Amino acid sequence: MDTVLKDKLNEYCKRVELGIDEFLPDAHTRPKKLHSAMRYSISAGGKRIRPTLLLIASELFERKSDPTAAAVAVECLHTYTLIHDDLPAIDNSALRRGSPSCHTKYNEATAILAGDSLLTHAFRVLSEQYSTEPNLAILLIKELAQASSSECLIAGQQEDIENEGQAIDADKLLFIHAKKTAALLSAALKMGLYFCQPNESQLSMIALAGYHLGLAFQIIDDILDATSSSDLLGKPVGNDAAIEKSTYIVLLGLEGARSEAHRHTQKAIDAFKNLGGNNLTLLSLVSELEKRIN
Amino acid sequence: MDTVLKDKLNEYCKRVELGIDEFLPDAHTRPKKLHSAMRYSISAGGKRIRPTLLLIASELFERKSDPTAAAVAVECLHTYTLIHDDLPAIDNSALRRGSPSCHTKYNEATAILAGDSLLTHAFRVLSEQYSTEPNLAILLIKELAQASSSECLIAGQQEDIENEGQAIDADKLLFIHAKKTAALLSAALKMGLYFCQPNESQLSMIALAGYHLGLAFQIIDDILDATSSSDLLGKPVGNDAAIEKSTYIVLLGLEGARSEAHRHTQKAIDAFKNLGGNNLTLLSLVSELEKRIN
Repeated sequence: MDTVLKDKLNEYCKRVELGIDEFLPDAHTRPKKLHSAMRYSISAGGKRIRPTLLLIASELFERKSDPTAAAVAVECLHTYTLIHDDLPAIDNSALRRGSPSCHTKYNEATAILAGDSLLTHAFRVLSEQYSTEPNLAILLIKELAQASSSECLIAGQQEDIENEGQAIDADKLLFIHAKKTAALLSAALKMGLYFCQPNESQLSMIALAGYHLGLAFQIIDDILDATSSSDLLGKPVGNDAAIEKSTYIVLLGLEGARSEAHRHTQKAIDAFKNLGGNNLTLLSLVSELEKRIN
Repeated sequence: MDTVLKDKLNEYCKRVELGIDEFLPDAHTRPKKLHSAMRYSISAGGKRIRPTLLLIASELFERKSDPTAAAVAVECLHTYTLIHDDLPAIDNSALRRGSPSCHTKYNEATAILAGDSLLTHAFRVLSEQYSTEPNLAILLIKELAQASSSECLIAGQQEDIENEGQAIDADKLLFIHAKKTAALLSAALKMGLYFCQPNESQLSMIALAGYHLGLAFQIIDDILDATSSSDLLGKPVGNDAAIEKSTYIVLLGLEGARSEAHRHTQKAIDAFKNLGGNNLTLLSLVSELEKRIN
């Protein structure tokens, strides 16, 4: 990765880490086990891709207020989905990013409630931190609630579970990836852009970019799951195959999946170019994501 | 129950039922199983006490907008807590209000996601339905998010679980009941009052009323669990004793619990009287709740 991008991403990550520390209840808050579980899972060393996208998007044009709390809200939302996905009744993953998953480290009841807590906290942070800018706050909350709703993120998760062990077609796989992964990435970008008081066409353009970026991101994740070593990824590889998840690799083969990832990456780049503004960081980040599989 | 109050409560209930039907995704929305589970659990014949309190509170003084969507949001939030409470890893209840609980009727994964969906939907409905009144919307969202947060509702639930099978003292039991039950009842009342543009002292007074009403409500529930027949309640009775939950009955005996319920009921009545406005329905509802145990 070129060092300019690397330094920038490190800087965004630091802002996200500081924001998480600032806007989440202290681990010693009563009940300690619950708050410690929330902090354990949100600090488990993720790439912070969603909050980073939000922060970068907020710098595309002139910005009015500080987007850090919104970035934290998106990461709370994302972390809750990971905790609940890992539960025995869903993916039954004992590990997450090389460490015990939340229910392994604590227990199942605490993991369910820690997930519920982070989901609730996402909306709490937005309503508390932007209460003096209610118009902005409502746009942020509506965007996040719609993207993570039963018709979007949770819809993708539900169909993913329902189709385990079954051969599924490209349409259904696209539905799952678009809803489960692309929607929240797209929402993070839109939420960032809301800080620049965008017009409708800018919002549509960044949503389109987010859609393609999200699909590229998911396909790349599937390719890495199928091809990397466990050490590199920090989680068991071949996990998708083991629980018989359909992926683009099953559907298109490895080369087909690579070319699909490339196609979506290009479409995301086109949309970010159309959007204009200070888009250089976004453009190099998108290209960098694809490089992980080459 | 006197027929005037009964008719009024039926009317409020009807508004809540219509609101649920209007503001929840159709049961046929993709994925059908998820949306059908959401509607199954929210239609399982509860007393609608929280949304009813919200609607009544919104009529205490002159009201500006329609509180029905806010009432639905509170019921979505409440229903999610019931679905997750019933899960095998938490209370492991196969029945809820005389019918199979959500994970019994569907499966555990769907129940986890249906709970997540209703929690998310609460905030979605508020942000969508009050988007043209962002000041009101933010007050409603902040109130609901704080009351249902890891420091409040979920805190009570976590400590309830952690203390199962253990003798606990009155302070801890009060913490659990105040957080797990009273906070959401209090929030429902405050949310209703927000529709009347209240001042700070009115908000404090209704919060105090909600606190005492919530505690009375929980103690009455515990008494009914210990003394009623299963047919009357529509759920297994003696369930608290079976899973060794500490209740006021364990702590104070049946008569002690009755007198504690009466004390809190009186304090709620005093606060509602102090609040003034069109408080007659609230006053007779509060008295009525206590009559269930006499």
